[in-house]
Amino acid sequence: MLPSILTDLELAHYLADRAGDTILPHFRHTKEFKNKSKNGFDPVTIADQSAENTIRKIVSEFRPNDGFWGEEFGRTAGPSGRSWIVDPIDGTRGFISGTPTWGTLISLVEENGRPTLGIIDQSFIGERFWGNPDGAYYRGPRGILRLITKESQSLNETILFSTFPEIGREIDHEGFTAVAKHVHMTRYGMDCYAYGLLALGQIDLVIEAGLYAYDICAPIAVIEAAGGIVTDWNGQSAYGGGQVLAAGNSIIHEQALDILRDYADPIII
Amino acid sequence: MLPSILTDLELAHYLADRAGDTILPHFRHTKEFKNKSKNGFDPVTIADQSAENTIRKIVSEFRPNDGFWGEEFGRTAGPSGRSWIVDPIDGTRGFISGTPTWGTLISLVEENGRPTLGIIDQSFIGERFWGNPDGAYYRGPRGILRLITKESQSLNETILFSTFPEIGREIDHEGFTAVAKHVHMTRYGMDCYAYGLLALGQIDLVIEAGLYAYDICAPIAVIEAAGGIVTDWNGQSAYGGGQVLAAGNSIIHEQALDILRDYADPIII
Repeated sequence: MLPSILTDLELAHYLADRAGDTILPHFRHTKEFKNKSKNGFDPVTIADQSAENTIRKIVSEFRPNDGFWGEEFGRTAGPSGRSWIVDPIDGTRGFISGTPTWGTLISLVEENGRPTLGIIDQSFIGERFWGNPDGAYYRGPRGILRLITKESQSLNETILFSTFPEIGREIDHEGFTAVAKHVHMTRYGMDCYAYGLLALGQIDLVIEAGLYAYDICAPIAVIEAAGGIVTDWNGQSAYGGGQVLAAGNSIIHEQALDILRDYADPIII
Repeated sequence: MLPSILTDLELAHYLADRAGDTILPHFRHTKEFKNKSKNGFDPVTIADQSAENTIRKIVSEFRPNDGFWGEEFGRTAGPSGRSWIVDPIDGTRGFISGTPTWGTLISLVEENGRPTLGIIDQSFIGERFWGNPDGAYYRGPRGILRLITKESQSLNETILFSTFPEIGREIDHEGFTAVAKHVHMTRYGMDCYAYGLLALGQIDLVIEAGLYAYDICAPIAVIEAAGGIVTDWNGQSAYGGGQVLAAGNSIIHEQALDILRDYADPIII
């Protein structure tokens, strides 16, 4: 039985723990399920849905006045104006392929839309990245660390990540490529894990497109608490998703943004 | 003190253990080194070289008649005709970026060039894939498994991996793309970890180019022991590296090879 006076951060850690317990029995069992059924049974959906139900149930018990928005079952508002925004498994393709680069994303978003608490959890490896206004931390197989982003000064020394080389629409791909031409190294395939590496100070930039709020709210809270910046390609709030630019510091962010603005979606007022 | 009558497999496990001990203190310390020094001091090279020296020393003690070939310090022959072929850190770019997808590759190659024993070790996560004529196994955070490759029947249900979207030369990229058009899903960024996922039965195909023997001998031994097939793009031995096609079974291998032959390097007789 959990004490009812958990802090938001304690509750978020508990949600991530329970999500991991729910998801891990399904990880790398894809092939068995696939062989047994021809009618589209999808174990990722089972893992996704079970984890989201688990998280939703705990939130409704401990924060009955907060809203909830998960990737699988949509959105409910609450009288507090705050919402828990969750993606139980970010990186479904990685999950199906067996790569340990998917993650559970948990965020708490204030009434003004700003995510102030976030967790990126890779439960198979046992790595967790988290942040709130009190700080940003990591724990993993080799211990606990404070998360601090990189201090790179110029694009040509940076490491850039995105999940797919296609990025999104053709315009998204062109914007990404325009930045990639200037960086030291470009890598793919890490899903939300790349945002963790950015907060950890290992890489400098993540550029993606076509995101939803539940893909990016947790990374925003972690990266901002670690000293980084996340905006859309116009330099405005990325709380809602869309075209996203995450950078380790304001100098690198500005250099990448100067290029991406030409490929940014029109600002809707 | 190790007993002098270790089997080859026991020795290989010991080599992987010691390599991990040597490498892990350098992992994710790249940024500190980078900030402190402008004169090209490279912790990845240090980790690579230290691990290779560690492995070479143990092999020379326990198998003084065997040859040795490592990525960093080249090749020495031995009177037995056999050689230990080693890449202490396969996936240097992943290592620098902090992704847990690099690995230590250890193989034992017979006088005819055939790798009969291989280990792919991801020491940060604590995952190891190994194979020899007695079988293929995996151990990781959630236990030990027998490695068995997938039984897919058609390219359109397969998952294809490669490390970089560019693959290699233009002709390599064209060959890869010609296969990728037919598969269910293509993913990037996993380095040698992708060969482990293939042996584990999670994915179906890995296609790469420009490889060296030390990049592929360990994966060949693991994948063949798990039921898969690794050849070059002409369908011949890939022991020497070059253009490589790894598949979970002969049906998928043949379908991919039918496409890749048109992009294969000329056979040198």
